[in-house]
Amino acid sequence: MTVSPFDHPLLSGLLGDEEAARHFSVEADIAAMLAFERALAEAEAECGVISRDAEAAIVKALAAFRPDTAKLRAGVAKDGVVVPELVRQIRAAVGDTHGEFVHFGATSQDVIDTSLVLRLRRAVEHIGLLLSENIVRLASLEQEFGGTALTAMTRMQPAVPITVADRIVSWRAPLERHQQRLKEQSDRLLVVQFGGAAGTLEKLGDKASSVRAALAAKLDLGDAPQWHSQRDALAEFAGWLSLVTGSLGKFGQDVALMAQAGTDIELSGGGGSSAMPHKQNPVKAEALVALARFNASQLSGMHQALVHEQERSGAAWTLEWLLLPQMVVATAAALRLAAELAGQIESLGH
Amino acid sequence: MTVSPFDHPLLSGLLGDEEAARHFSVEADIAAMLAFERALAEAEAECGVISRDAEAAIVKALAAFRPDTAKLRAGVAKDGVVVPELVRQIRAAVGDTHGEFVHFGATSQDVIDTSLVLRLRRAVEHIGLLLSENIVRLASLEQEFGGTALTAMTRMQPAVPITVADRIVSWRAPLERHQQRLKEQSDRLLVVQFGGAAGTLEKLGDKASSVRAALAAKLDLGDAPQWHSQRDALAEFAGWLSLVTGSLGKFGQDVALMAQAGTDIELSGGGGSSAMPHKQNPVKAEALVALARFNASQLSGMHQALVHEQERSGAAWTLEWLLLPQMVVATAAALRLAAELAGQIESLGH
Amino acid sequence: MTVSPFDHPLLSGLLGDEEAARHFSVEADIAAMLAFERALAEAEAECGVISRDAEAAIVKALAAFRPDTAKLRAGVAKDGVVVPELVRQIRAAVGDTHGEFVHFGATSQDVIDTSLVLRLRRAVEHIGLLLSENIVRLASLEQEFGGTALTAMTRMQPAVPITVADRIVSWRAPLERHQQRLKEQSDRLLVVQFGGAAGTLEKLGDKASSVRAALAAKLDLGDAPQWHSQRDALAEFAGWLSLVTGSLGKFGQDVALMAQAGTDIELSGGGGSSAMPHKQNPVKAEALVALARFNASQLSGMHQALVHEQERSGAAWTLEWLLLPQMVVATAAALRLAAELAGQIESLGH
Amino acid sequence: MTVSPFDHPLLSGLLGDEEAARHFSVEADIAAMLAFERALAEAEAECGVISRDAEAAIVKALAAFRPDTAKLRAGVAKDGVVVPELVRQIRAAVGDTHGEFVHFGATSQDVIDTSLVLRLRRAVEHIGLLLSENIVRLASLEQEFGGTALTAMTRMQPAVPITVADRIVSWRAPLERHQQRLKEQSDRLLVVQFGGAAGTLEKLGDKASSVRAALAAKLDLGDAPQWHSQRDALAEFAGWLSLVTGSLGKFGQDVALMAQAGTDIELSGGGGSSAMPHKQNPVKAEALVALARFNASQLSGMHQALVHEQERSGAAWTLEWLLLPQMVVATAAALRLAAELAGQIESLGH
Repeated sequence: MTVSPFDHPLLSGLLGDEEAARHFSVEADIAAMLAFERALAEAEAECGVISRDAEAAIVKALAAFRPDTAKLRAGVAKDGVVVPELVRQIRAAVGDTHGEFVHFGATSQDVIDTSLVLRLRRAVEHIGLLLSENIVRLASLEQEFGGTALTAMTRMQPAVPITVADRIVSWRAPLERHQQRLKEQSDRLLVVQFGGAAGTLEKLGDKASSVRAALAAKLDLGDAPQWHSQRDALAEFAGWLSLVTGSLGKFGQDVALMAQAGTDIELSGGGGSSAMPHKQNPVKAEALVALARFNASQLSGMHQALVHEQERSGAAWTLEWLLLPQMVVATAAALRLAAELAGQIESLGH
Repeated sequence: MTVSPFDHPLLSGLLGDEEAARHFSVEADIAAMLAFERALAEAEAECGVISRDAEAAIVKALAAFRPDTAKLRAGVAKDGVVVPELVRQIRAAVGDTHGEFVHFGATSQDVIDTSLVLRLRRAVEHIGLLLSENIVRLASLEQEFGGTALTAMTRMQPAVPITVADRIVSWRAPLERHQQRLKEQSDRLLVVQFGGAAGTLEKLGDKASSVRAALAAKLDLGDAPQWHSQRDALAEFAGWLSLVTGSLGKFGQDVALMAQAGTDIELSGGGGSSAMPHKQNPVKAEALVALARFNASQLSGMHQALVHEQERSGAAWTLEWLLLPQMVVATAAALRLAAELAGQIESLGH
Repeated sequence: MTVSPFDHPLLSGLLGDEEAARHFSVEADIAAMLAFERALAEAEAECGVISRDAEAAIVKALAAFRPDTAKLRAGVAKDGVVVPELVRQIRAAVGDTHGEFVHFGATSQDVIDTSLVLRLRRAVEHIGLLLSENIVRLASLEQEFGGTALTAMTRMQPAVPITVADRIVSWRAPLERHQQRLKEQSDRLLVVQFGGAAGTLEKLGDKASSVRAALAAKLDLGDAPQWHSQRDALAEFAGWLSLVTGSLGKFGQDVALMAQAGTDIELSGGGGSSAMPHKQNPVKAEALVALARFNASQLSGMHQALVHEQERSGAAWTLEWLLLPQMVVATAAALRLAAELAGQIESLGH
Repeated sequence: MTVSPFDHPLLSGLLGDEEAARHFSVEADIAAMLAFERALAEAEAECGVISRDAEAAIVKALAAFRPDTAKLRAGVAKDGVVVPELVRQIRAAVGDTHGEFVHFGATSQDVIDTSLVLRLRRAVEHIGLLLSENIVRLASLEQEFGGTALTAMTRMQPAVPITVADRIVSWRAPLERHQQRLKEQSDRLLVVQFGGAAGTLEKLGDKASSVRAALAAKLDLGDAPQWHSQRDALAEFAGWLSLVTGSLGKFGQDVALMAQAGTDIELSGGGGSSAMPHKQNPVKAEALVALARFNASQLSGMHQALVHEQERSGAAWTLEWLLLPQMVVATAAALRLAAELAGQIESLGH
């Protein structure tokens, strides 16, 4: 199915980003969940919570494990999360002797949230690279055309003469601040989720924190107390994504307005029209505005999801799933489009 | 790719709706676009705008037409819309003599918006049936348990005794009003889009309105002046979708609260937990809340898209694509889940 | 205090609307609440629920009643609603003999919601007049400049020649549909709220529906079952408000773009700049865009408030108070500004 | 007028915050704008841009200046900003000889944005104190009741035993992270705005940066290049405000759910009902949820305003005015209410 343009075979050519999207495929999700279960078994064996034999059996079974996805789908429909059925299948694969030590002390949310964070880490690396590329491209446009004259437009009216560099700075400087912001929040975002049934790791007794630390280390994530019902790092990250697309939306809007005025920009490879072959539509510039307004709308939902009832809210948690992955892909797509658009600029100013 | 839960092989088991989603597949979209091009050729031949030979050649070619989807994807990436490349392919299939009469007088937006409306019509029929089913199920719950006692809860506190019927009415009555609302707005929503390059059908001269009327009739849609930059009917429909999910979200929230209190509802088949086998989570009730809050967030974006520049805004139009299909599927999914949830209720009241 | 521009002595000169805003003053609210209590006493006496003496005492006391607003404020802080303290004060004014028959059988929400509807009715009349005025003004612009040439702009690029009339239609036609929509939904919106403690009017026994009908008639509102937890009519109305401002936002955006291009519109009385005395900023056009995006944002919250728990949700109800009045005033302000802006247009087209 | 509950004489008793709101009064705004003009004159005299005589005349006139607010209101209506008329009045007060040196080289946006930042600084200090107070109160609740037993609730169902401390941590830990976040972003937020007509300070020649640095120093703000069209720091701050209210909304929701269940919390001084004198409504808890959902809705609009056209967008800028002050007051009100609510908790756990 292809309800979302980010998944749509045709529309994702414009609006999607393959590298970001693949971190949200079923395969990537399952791989990350299996990585969690493996790392958990290793960490628990290391800390003496389960036996080395159980660990070995689990690691071996996971290496060969292939889920029955039809049953996983039915499991989600019934349980609201994939983990109970996934764990059932893994336990069956491990066998009777050690099966019960799979997922020991963990809860569905530990697996799903940690899988999300593992994949966000990759997506963030990708987005970080795209962000740098945009900064470089804008700097290079500035070098090439920065000294050219431009008429400042304030409140949609001609104001005073400025240079192209003055406008490019307004596109680039926010992106540099977004790099700084990402650095600041990464330590809050890229942490393991591990709390057990209700956040207290009650099955692990006094080994709880050492298991958690070992688990985090094995997954190369930060170690932090469970955040089952504390979703501020995710909402903050969603805000960051929307800051990025908002800044790129300003760039797109400016390019579209310059293209409309017609004299201050030359773009190669604009979009064609089915009715008017002469046209060169600033398609990527418009898409940047659309993606900015899309993310701004989603962000509201991510903040609604902060009202997370008690120890775990199925409603608020599910709402995140409906919003965050698309925000990530929208941001990657916007960065890709902005870099391409910068590359299409043949001249700026007059 | 499966960035959206509505497209996700596992999560769509809970959050998706296959019947609604298939109207947003590439296949359904292309089929509807081809239906538009066919009906247009027929209407234009009927009105003497193109020859009967051209019509016959186009109809024949369309019947056998299979698009090159890789090129369509590249076309979207370049043009921002699929139509220029699709029309190029169709024209090639029709051949040199009559190819130029394919899509005659039309523009990309005519094809894409009409295709959307054709598929919304189907989706609306489906949603209408699900809505009726919900009303019936709630009426039947009322019949079965309506007379049982319940303690009204106001501001999260026990208030005075009421009956189960009193609460069920608050779930059902809004759905009945939504039926009325849908009837009122359908005539505004289910209309053809046909305006040509900039809305004036300038290539059709004095035959413009008769071609449009014939086109609408052939597609079984209402006839109306083009609405290229007037998106109020879509925003109104989005509002309707969110009203429906909002009402179902209230139902879901109430069920979850009753399930928490524990004495006023019995649910069969609740969701399981990976950590606590004894639990019966009200998974569908929670999903209803999540879908309500999701649609409420998207709605904001659909209204942002009302600010549609000039004769056609690529930015505002693209924003709709990112929002509306998912709202439709979210609504269908919510209705499906609500009906299932009503079916799981074994008792109500005390 | 003046946190909101709608209340701000300076900013409301641009962004506010006095006529709409005064329906949301404390005075208007209290007057409407007293009208409710008076009509209730009359209706209940008419139906034999309270004595004619009690009615007379209540009517008389209400006529002279002046609330202690400092205590009302403290009451809101404590109870979350003004009504318990207001009723206490009214009862004291009525005196011991008949005081207990004030507000008999009613609950806070009955008073507050009915007061809201009474004031919305006035606001809707005002908005309806402004809407008609806009339609007339646009029709008159069409008459004056409709035949003039204009270059259609699609996707921010020059497309084909159209006339000024073609563009004006895209501004006016949605407003005419909004008139139709308002008519359709008014019957759902302009109804009394009367349900008692938990919606069942349990204190009125078999006289409940006749009291409600009489109360509605006296207040000149529609009669309908209580909608304490069914907020769809309010959310629908909020959607309507945002449809109106969205359409006006498109008008504003178009005017600002024409003013930027500089050749297709002449505006009298544009805004001045503190730095550049030569400028004529399209201030009202920009404000229309801002108000459209404002309402689109608020709308999301109004739909979040549909998830209204159980028989009365303090949280969802309070959320409406934070959103709806400002949406009403924003809409009135936008209509006022749009009419003024239409009046400033000295020429259109080229 | 009192359209917004934050300005409403009665409702602000619950939903407002006087200390935060007064920074958004006309008086506070004008005082801050005059402080800007004074500091500018001083900085420009210091750097030799204007004469010491002009500085003295301006400083003297500003000390005695009383604006004609009726004309200011008319100025906003005409110019979209208050500054042109305000500067006209100040210049008249300074007199012919030196009047032209008032506001020299500055633009409206410099004055208005710097005034906003000056007042945000105060609001942020207030909010920071309230945040600390909440953390202290929650810590003290933890100390008092932390060891008491509680049944964890996951997905609205009883899960496993935890302690009260476990739940309180989920309320407090996010607030501590919010303190850290505020520290990180303050340097980006609390900076002067000074760019002149179109951001280039073209009237100040090579003295531009020294004037800006001196101006910032005099106002005790950070020095930074103008951010006329780069609104990321404001959107980021809005996100922070909504993170705070979101976390408090979770606290409120939890308290309301505990109050509903009835056994795990004792609250003093709950709200009364006009229909049911026995009730103790968790009014403040509900208000926290409402304020969280309010801010989450506004945040979307603040991110829409990132799409800021060219050197200055009247539309996007005005949109901020409609949203940000209310978000600030909503956040202060939520913090005040949360602290009060924490103080009302008489016992926790069972």
